[in-house]
Amino acid sequence: MKSDKHPQALVFDVFGTVVDWHGSVAREVRQAGLPVQAEDFARAWRAGYAPAMDEVRQGRLPWTTIDGLHRRILDRLLAERALALPEAARVNLNLAWHRLDPWPDVPGGLAQLKALMPVATLSNGNLRLLLDLARHGGLAWDALFSAELFGHYKPDPETYLGACRLLDLPPQAVTLVAAHPDDLRAAARCGLGTALVLRPDEFGVGRGTAPYDAGEFDVVVDGFGALAAHWASRRA
Amino acid sequence: MKSDKHPQALVFDVFGTVVDWHGSVAREVRQAGLPVQAEDFARAWRAGYAPAMDEVRQGRLPWTTIDGLHRRILDRLLAERALALPEAARVNLNLAWHRLDPWPDVPGGLAQLKALMPVATLSNGNLRLLLDLARHGGLAWDALFSAELFGHYKPDPETYLGACRLLDLPPQAVTLVAAHPDDLRAAARCGLGTALVLRPDEFGVGRGTAPYDAGEFDVVVDGFGALAAHWASRRA
Repeated sequence: MKSDKHPQALVFDVFGTVVDWHGSVAREVRQAGLPVQAEDFARAWRAGYAPAMDEVRQGRLPWTTIDGLHRRILDRLLAERALALPEAARVNLNLAWHRLDPWPDVPGGLAQLKALMPVATLSNGNLRLLLDLARHGGLAWDALFSAELFGHYKPDPETYLGACRLLDLPPQAVTLVAAHPDDLRAAARCGLGTALVLRPDEFGVGRGTAPYDAGEFDVVVDGFGALAAHWASRRA
Repeated sequence: MKSDKHPQALVFDVFGTVVDWHGSVAREVRQAGLPVQAEDFARAWRAGYAPAMDEVRQGRLPWTTIDGLHRRILDRLLAERALALPEAARVNLNLAWHRLDPWPDVPGGLAQLKALMPVATLSNGNLRLLLDLARHGGLAWDALFSAELFGHYKPDPETYLGACRLLDLPPQAVTLVAAHPDDLRAAARCGLGTALVLRPDEFGVGRGTAPYDAGEFDVVVDGFGALAAHWASRRA
């Protein structure tokens, strides 16, 4: 924890940082009755996500929401495995991404952070998905910022700078909270502060996190409660 | 109350519908120590708002947030009255619009409505202003939709249709809640449902509301609690 800067607002990555996509999607894959190893299927689904966004970011695909990208990937995975699933079941399974559970430390920790400063999402998830996740998990965001608002996906700078513009704050006054070093590095290049939340179970229990350098980020914590305690102590 | 349609989401006008701008701004004008009749000054400030937005809507002024428009109007009103006010005091008085109190029925009624379906702002106020109003008034919106997101001010159709797009709902599934018949009429032309909330004290106690025709709107109520009761009874 190298910095004593107290940010004036926080923006949060969502998939993996706020919610446990792996456990939640695997549960719904099992409920759908697909004859697959549910955890592997969840990871394969998620693995299609960055390449699909890159197609949009590089202009090879017109703007498509995450709901649309998730559905394209799902259809491909089912086809590759020669699995039949009726349309209504596909629609419902795709909506699993709207019903992801928050990590256990999130609801309480987020409420503590909200008492200190404004808290908002900054996610590649489309706005309706973020709204549904908030209602599902009881998360009291001050605002939902989505790539959909900016017509750009992270790590494009338009996303980080767009959130700062809507918050009416300079990037230096805003900190991104994320479980992913590459997201934080892109935010830092735009001038934002950085808080890494370690989520070693994101890809399955104990599978670990991506590497980062000591001192690379302003704050490194193991959960939202610790993050609230960090800034509460600097405000007091 | 002509319609039994149960909407799938609600979007809310804010100034006058959710918050009492007249009473709140007049209070801050008094606190600023300006030698003016505070209620008259608040009404004059608000009266500059629609013409200023029209300058933006008609392309005579580049996109300017409500914060910026409010400041232009304030500077003009002070100059017309030959009133001196230091820059820091002007900045603070302009932020009065971020500290407007909700009408008394709003916090409780909004919580009841949120239990029934998603609730979001749809305001010409800029996003940071809406965020500050929500924190000031303890209003638990599911999302903040602002003209700033669309680069258009109400009553331009891009605002109503933009909110529906972000909610991933057809206009027929979304109802606008507003105290102003003209706002509701523009929403209805885009296909949205309409709920008029009577706010006879918006421009000062007992000054009344704009005229409307019987049966013109789907629902007419005198507050947010009555609106929640209306839809709760149709859901049961």
